[in-house]
Amino acid sequence: MNGLPPAGFRCAFVTGAAGFIGSHLVDRLLAGGIRVVGYDDLSTGMPEFLAEARRHPAFTFARSSVLDTRQLAAMMQGCDVVFHFAANADVRFGLRHPRRDLEQNTIATFNVLEAMRANGIADMVFASTGAIYGEAKVIPTPEDAPFPVQTSLYAASKLAGEGLISAYCEGYAMRSWIFRLVAILGERHTHGHVFDFYSQLLADPSRLRVLGNGRQRKSFLYVHDCLSAVFDAMTHAEGSVNIFNLGNDDYCELDTSIGWITAHLGLAPVLDYAGGDRGWIGDNPFVFLDTRRIRSLGWQPKVSIKEGVIRTLDWLAGNHWVLERRSVPDAASPGASVGPMQSI
Amino acid sequence: MNGLPPAGFRCAFVTGAAGFIGSHLVDRLLAGGIRVVGYDDLSTGMPEFLAEARRHPAFTFARSSVLDTRQLAAMMQGCDVVFHFAANADVRFGLRHPRRDLEQNTIATFNVLEAMRANGIADMVFASTGAIYGEAKVIPTPEDAPFPVQTSLYAASKLAGEGLISAYCEGYAMRSWIFRLVAILGERHTHGHVFDFYSQLLADPSRLRVLGNGRQRKSFLYVHDCLSAVFDAMTHAEGSVNIFNLGNDDYCELDTSIGWITAHLGLAPVLDYAGGDRGWIGDNPFVFLDTRRIRSLGWQPKVSIKEGVIRTLDWLAGNHWVLERRSVPDAASPGASVGPMQSI
Repeated sequence: MNGLPPAGFRCAFVTGAAGFIGSHLVDRLLAGGIRVVGYDDLSTGMPEFLAEARRHPAFTFARSSVLDTRQLAAMMQGCDVVFHFAANADVRFGLRHPRRDLEQNTIATFNVLEAMRANGIADMVFASTGAIYGEAKVIPTPEDAPFPVQTSLYAASKLAGEGLISAYCEGYAMRSWIFRLVAILGERHTHGHVFDFYSQLLADPSRLRVLGNGRQRKSFLYVHDCLSAVFDAMTHAEGSVNIFNLGNDDYCELDTSIGWITAHLGLAPVLDYAGGDRGWIGDNPFVFLDTRRIRSLGWQPKVSIKEGVIRTLDWLAGNHWVLERRSVPDAASPGASVGPMQSI
Repeated sequence: MNGLPPAGFRCAFVTGAAGFIGSHLVDRLLAGGIRVVGYDDLSTGMPEFLAEARRHPAFTFARSSVLDTRQLAAMMQGCDVVFHFAANADVRFGLRHPRRDLEQNTIATFNVLEAMRANGIADMVFASTGAIYGEAKVIPTPEDAPFPVQTSLYAASKLAGEGLISAYCEGYAMRSWIFRLVAILGERHTHGHVFDFYSQLLADPSRLRVLGNGRQRKSFLYVHDCLSAVFDAMTHAEGSVNIFNLGNDDYCELDTSIGWITAHLGLAPVLDYAGGDRGWIGDNPFVFLDTRRIRSLGWQPKVSIKEGVIRTLDWLAGNHWVLERRSVPDAASPGASVGPMQSI
């Protein structure tokens, strides 16, 4: 297991290329000698994340939407694998604008599949989510857990994406690697509890508002461990539809993470809990995925949850520009702003 | 268990009202004293199926598409429960026009949910499919079977619909009854193997073309048993998301059904098998659902698979007009015609 991009591909098409995970993916593909066409509408992606990639001769960037089917098919031409990482990743505010998950996640995935079919591209990698297990009855939750009931529009839209991809693989002889991710941490992290808490504490170091009761249990994975798993799975899993949970060895309580964060920043804020056993409607208070399937290929995470939290904090401390960018009120839902309360 | 519509509803909105199952549903709701607004674009529904309903003073019909969001919301006004039975039910030809399942099933379901939200309607009944279990590993397959991998665009689109409905129930305090159906038989049956074999034998009684090897095992349910189960579940299951398999006590091999059909018609055609263990790409060669959950409410099917096949044949024999109507080549996919080979 070396975490290198799989052999045999010459040109990768990456949707969400300017996003948190997508931009790291682009960098690693380029470093591995693969040409990359990055595709992003920059609605939430950051052009700064592609600064290094854009200096690379094997990188092409298209600023366009996954809802623009014509542009999608045109830019995909000549690629031999598609990494579909574009998404509306805003889990918490789905109920404010239900159409967004349908369009940005479900219909977008359909558009990507159709563009692949039009270009004769057979291989697809999809960033799905552990949230599709809903309130899992089996924890740690394996890939073949009992058929879950969806609790969020985000997860429902990702499940719909998985279903489309699987049906395309069966019907059109395509191949896919579908990854059900826990929350991802690391450099370029732009949403989630570490981001939100850091933003709050920067504004007011004396007080931290916390959604739920702090006892929520979640698992987190460092972004480069995540990408190594993606590459390892592509190298070693050769079925038609290859589904993998990606998560860390363990989970932590939100309160524990708050302890790491405040200690690392040297702060002792008053904690102001919103109460209840979960962060928001549809949130799952206990997320812990069974990762035996990906581990059986030899992969294992190298960065602990605590270390992931601290690397994220250190990166945020050196990149305050990202906080300002993300705290701009959400144009599509006036009044909503990302930042004040944690969303993972 | 009386199979009567649940008490407490005054006006039902029925999508797919002119369809096979939908039109029987309309008749039974009206007979139960419930006002009905039927909604159907008549793309596959038959106005003749609503002949009796249209003479009833408590019935209103709107010829419109589930993709027309404005009309959907307007016509739903004043209803207190929605039965969403409109769908592209063409399982076999999904690969010829992949956008159709996305639009007619997934996006349509989203539109229905949004129209309900706009009208403050909280209760929804959804006709899903046992096909979402893909190639089930557990047979008979229970509702909480291991998380399946989708094999058809039809099932993927229905799974997406289920996910949307569940997330809406969680997020907007709605309530749903979701039914995963086996193939349904009975009066007004307009597609499936009985329809297709009858059509073939009418054209040429000496020869019957059969998809697969005849050993496919499927379960079938009579339409009125299906609707009694729907009503019983609504009366007795009061969770937020109520999911039920609906199927018969047993299954039969396709060859067995061919035996019943040819014997009933007094024919002895040469059987011409296409070969392979399944009818088409994405077909599941063994469908048998575990129905203990709905049975625990006291429901049980009254009509056997054989009797369902024979009632269907007898109805077709008296309604040849329906064969002509359905054998018109599929406008949206030139060259495809429904009829010559069985599709369930």
